[in-house]
Amino acid sequence: MDILVSLDENYVRQLCVLLTSIHVSNPGVGAGIYLMHRGISEKKLLRLSSCLEAVGFRLFPVAVDERMFMNAPSTKQYPQEMYYRLLASSMLPGNLDRILYLDPDTLVVNSLEKLWKTDIGGFLFAAAAHTGKTELANNINRLRLKTENDYFNSGVLLINLERCRKEVRAEDIFKYVEEHSSSLLLPDQDILNALYWDRIRKLDDSIWNYDARNYSNYLLRSFGKADTAWVMENTAIFHFCGKAKPWKKRYNYRFGVLYRHYMQLSRAYFPGLSF
Amino acid sequence: MDILVSLDENYVRQLCVLLTSIHVSNPGVGAGIYLMHRGISEKKLLRLSSCLEAVGFRLFPVAVDERMFMNAPSTKQYPQEMYYRLLASSMLPGNLDRILYLDPDTLVVNSLEKLWKTDIGGFLFAAAAHTGKTELANNINRLRLKTENDYFNSGVLLINLERCRKEVRAEDIFKYVEEHSSSLLLPDQDILNALYWDRIRKLDDSIWNYDARNYSNYLLRSFGKADTAWVMENTAIFHFCGKAKPWKKRYNYRFGVLYRHYMQLSRAYFPGLSF
Repeated sequence: MDILVSLDENYVRQLCVLLTSIHVSNPGVGAGIYLMHRGISEKKLLRLSSCLEAVGFRLFPVAVDERMFMNAPSTKQYPQEMYYRLLASSMLPGNLDRILYLDPDTLVVNSLEKLWKTDIGGFLFAAAAHTGKTELANNINRLRLKTENDYFNSGVLLINLERCRKEVRAEDIFKYVEEHSSSLLLPDQDILNALYWDRIRKLDDSIWNYDARNYSNYLLRSFGKADTAWVMENTAIFHFCGKAKPWKKRYNYRFGVLYRHYMQLSRAYFPGLSF
Repeated sequence: MDILVSLDENYVRQLCVLLTSIHVSNPGVGAGIYLMHRGISEKKLLRLSSCLEAVGFRLFPVAVDERMFMNAPSTKQYPQEMYYRLLASSMLPGNLDRILYLDPDTLVVNSLEKLWKTDIGGFLFAAAAHTGKTELANNINRLRLKTENDYFNSGVLLINLERCRKEVRAEDIFKYVEEHSSSLLLPDQDILNALYWDRIRKLDDSIWNYDARNYSNYLLRSFGKADTAWVMENTAIFHFCGKAKPWKKRYNYRFGVLYRHYMQLSRAYFPGLSF
């Protein structure tokens, strides 16, 4: 299994929590971890690498030339790194034919095997839309970005690298950003939806990209089926999206306990990194 | 590290959850698992044994001659097995000088190392009292059992086997049960407190025997310190005591999510056992 993450030095802590959760929830599964980044120190990468080896993972750092993104709009909440996932196909080794991109605010609590083996067919990506509570937002986004599909969340993205190498062009992305920079709300996600909405295979968000803020909504729309027991048996990836973050104080949503537990476990699994 | 559990076939499921939690929260730590039981089938023990080997644990089944306890009072909720912990010293191999007894409704979420290395001194046991909310119950129990100490909970018990071999006698226990059978509420726990209250070293329950029903109480008595983040960093053993059990439907206390997660993980770690 190959995992792609892209982050800067400020999110190494969250990366370790995520990797701990992948390791614990997928016992015995090896993984290549492709880390696209700018400016994470050699020393930190070496320590991370040896920690990962101890749990059967292998780290492949991919340093990105940041000049490539000099003119792309970014903020503290949405740094340059958010573009990397869309352009992964041109920056990752040619022998990889697919990769699973995960945001650093996700947590894996069940096997990823079925997702990893998903038939993407001729699609470029497989992704989930956060439906239900955000139905209105979905409609607004459809109009805003001129798509006819759900508004896909870009936090969990199975990328068909083989296909993307032929069809995804950096020029298209930069051109789109240039022409719409004033109206982009969640830049990478908007680009994904605006440019590729008809090239994305839909995943079930309650399994592969569970919006951790929306327990009641998932419960409601499943007619009571998706209670805590169901979620723990079926959901594989939690996405702690939005402003409230489970590593911050006073996070009070139901699954924050799990995130905190994995924060603690990451200290035991990655003793070489001091948090 | 040596762990003692005592249960019948109906609790093998919970045992696997507990052992999964010990394994995941104590990476790389080997353990001997002493299982005192009656009537668990040879086939089930063999399967359990090979599952445990895969995670670096070793199973030592100790079949108990149930005729020994024929006259001891027991119910469905408090089966014969509850006595085993008190008499462990006479039934376990002589080369063990201490063992950590854990109830099957406990869950381990942090390192057990400090507990395992606790200096028991000349005490027979180390145990925690569920203080705070149950202060009134504590006082009643003191009067009821004629002790001058807190009412200790017998669900987590570090047993000084070396010392117990010299001082704990089955006759004393059976005699006490015989004389008080009508007034015993939680038989094994009452015996522990009535006979050995002054021979128990006190442990911090918020770390080693956290009553999972009482989050608000722990938070209150710590003046707000013991919030979820603190608990996840410090608490090592949750005890899901009382009638509400986290493996049952509609369990709604805060840490039930963790228990459910470990139920699911146990399927991945013990694939040889079908749940």
